[in-house]
Amino acid sequence: MEQGFVPASELNMRIEKLQRELARVELDGALIVGNTDLYYFSGTVPTGFLYVPCEGKPILMVRKDFERARQESALEQVVPLDSMRKLAPTLQEYGYRPQRLGMELDILPVKDYHRYQSIFGSSSHIEDISGSIKQQRAVKSDYEIRLTRETAAIHRQVFEKIPGLIREGMTDLELSARIECELRMAGHLGATRFRGFNLELFMGQVLAGETAAAPSCYDTPLGGKGLSPLFPQGPSGTVIAPGRPISVDFMGNYNGYMVDQTRMYCLGRFPSKLAEAFKVALEVQQMVEEQAKPGANAALIYEQALKIAAGAGLAGHFMGYGQPVSFIGHGVGLEVNELPVLAKGIEIILQPGHIFAVEPKFVFPGLGVAGLENTYLVTETGVEKLTTLPDQVLELPIG
Amino acid sequence: MEQGFVPASELNMRIEKLQRELARVELDGALIVGNTDLYYFSGTVPTGFLYVPCEGKPILMVRKDFERARQESALEQVVPLDSMRKLAPTLQEYGYRPQRLGMELDILPVKDYHRYQSIFGSSSHIEDISGSIKQQRAVKSDYEIRLTRETAAIHRQVFEKIPGLIREGMTDLELSARIECELRMAGHLGATRFRGFNLELFMGQVLAGETAAAPSCYDTPLGGKGLSPLFPQGPSGTVIAPGRPISVDFMGNYNGYMVDQTRMYCLGRFPSKLAEAFKVALEVQQMVEEQAKPGANAALIYEQALKIAAGAGLAGHFMGYGQPVSFIGHGVGLEVNELPVLAKGIEIILQPGHIFAVEPKFVFPGLGVAGLENTYLVTETGVEKLTTLPDQVLELPIG
Repeated sequence: MEQGFVPASELNMRIEKLQRELARVELDGALIVGNTDLYYFSGTVPTGFLYVPCEGKPILMVRKDFERARQESALEQVVPLDSMRKLAPTLQEYGYRPQRLGMELDILPVKDYHRYQSIFGSSSHIEDISGSIKQQRAVKSDYEIRLTRETAAIHRQVFEKIPGLIREGMTDLELSARIECELRMAGHLGATRFRGFNLELFMGQVLAGETAAAPSCYDTPLGGKGLSPLFPQGPSGTVIAPGRPISVDFMGNYNGYMVDQTRMYCLGRFPSKLAEAFKVALEVQQMVEEQAKPGANAALIYEQALKIAAGAGLAGHFMGYGQPVSFIGHGVGLEVNELPVLAKGIEIILQPGHIFAVEPKFVFPGLGVAGLENTYLVTETGVEKLTTLPDQVLELPIG
Repeated sequence: MEQGFVPASELNMRIEKLQRELARVELDGALIVGNTDLYYFSGTVPTGFLYVPCEGKPILMVRKDFERARQESALEQVVPLDSMRKLAPTLQEYGYRPQRLGMELDILPVKDYHRYQSIFGSSSHIEDISGSIKQQRAVKSDYEIRLTRETAAIHRQVFEKIPGLIREGMTDLELSARIECELRMAGHLGATRFRGFNLELFMGQVLAGETAAAPSCYDTPLGGKGLSPLFPQGPSGTVIAPGRPISVDFMGNYNGYMVDQTRMYCLGRFPSKLAEAFKVALEVQQMVEEQAKPGANAALIYEQALKIAAGAGLAGHFMGYGQPVSFIGHGVGLEVNELPVLAKGIEIILQPGHIFAVEPKFVFPGLGVAGLENTYLVTETGVEKLTTLPDQVLELPIG
């Protein structure tokens, strides 16, 4: 099996699960068009369209490149499509005339949607199937778990090189460039898919010193100042110096199934105020490790985390300063913002196969940040930590 | 002026131009929500919304982070917004009740669109303003031209390091990682924005040997095999060896205004068949340099390019093999796929301030690719080549 080629048994299982859902929500079929979902359900990402009927065999219709798609996809029915106008007629040839059609309306732009509406005609109704897909994708199969473990092992090896890359006087951008290079040498695919409008992420970010505490413009606990208002996050050219904390947060993405991991470093002594906050972050993490298991309510775990931060007198610094985010964890997989989330008021019951990152982080304006991030698998009885690098802040010798 | 901070005079000019267009198409205003357009019209990219009325002052409503947006944006009216529900009421406070509202429907997902529909109510009608914005953004101001020149100069310096990075026995991925690191060290922002559904690009790509000729799955002349079907483009682990052509195509992105540039390298002799094709690519480029000027029709230039390729007996290899793309050039700026395009049947009249990349490329399955790419500015009388690195294929000593 070549790297990233999804086995037929896996695809069939995914298609069947989606079909049961289509039957439940009374849709005639789903037309999958987003890159990540195309890969998930067909094993390939062509310019093309995957139709999954509520009953019967799916059809992958490929505009470009047909031969590659046929090679990469283990689906039985992969057919060429020379124009988008032939989409509905092709489905009809196979006996499919969807009246109620599911599409990924969380990502499909309005302009494209209007094209699909005219293709399927006014007798068809297009509905949002993205919620169902996201819930399905949140529960990882044994195959996906194995790949995520592989990712975690490679990511650990790359992170083990980080202490050797840190030099006094280099900027956070230089350190980031060096780490990115190591990630790529280890096979990182480069891109990091983030689902939804306006959501963007480079491979990750190195944040140093007080600029790490710059308020985030987005739904992330840490932002960093960034190099330009055009991308207001990430490294900013801050010089790495003794006593200046360094946060390194990168997605591992070597086979498609990602892990998310943050560790902290410091030349010399890590500031004591941050060291105290870091201990609280560890307490939050330990609480999650104890509470998270099949049947647990993710929203309650989030509330517990807030209590721990408040108990330590750090409520105002937890998960951001001023405008904190309202989550402490998020699912990871083919995308960086999957389900389940451990978030305020979002009552998700954890189940075996859920994989999520937990990132208790504290922000101190004028000083910096303290925290960490690990990725966990929900097992039959609790959670297993997939990112096994030691949790401590690494204090490195100066000079 | 800090890096990437857009001056007030520049923003005002952009806003006024958009307002004239809004009046022309009889819209009451535009609600700008996409990251790139937010930056273009406000100078900052918060979680927020920019309302540009057809007359009067624009209002930037910021959910997060208000202080940063106020610092970064030179607009007069920057106001905090604590909930999306307050969007319409806030506009009303300023006297704006848009009945016909323009939005970026080429990128706005259906699900988000439905939210805006319910916010503005059934008496309001939301129309697509993206075509107008793209046309406006295609014509660069003196300020934008200056920044693009800066980018081109930095990008040239990085490319000058490439020969020193190429080693026999390294993979295309390793070479890519080294180049990406140099790009980042030179201040590359990392991300490369590509407008539209499913469009993704990492910083660029290194393609080596016959895997460079793998059919592209997308609307790009070259694809490369990639590391996984999940991202079916870019380097694939092919080993760099004597006589194996190497194509290096990266976006320069140091201040937001990008240039696109491709050069070719080879350890030892570049294969003669590819060398002949490369000469034809130079002929195509020279034709573009002669023909492109204000008033010229981009579609006719494209047709001319096809004739040159056909005249050289290379029609079947030009801009892809089997399923070639139907363009030879594309605008670049804050995004990698701007207007104007030099494409089949798309009748665009070139005008001063247009900036576009021209990429005549040939694909030979089993052998590799040959071609180059440069970025041009349309001046009052012709074009100016912004990417000034010498055009030749660099043959490097072996060992």
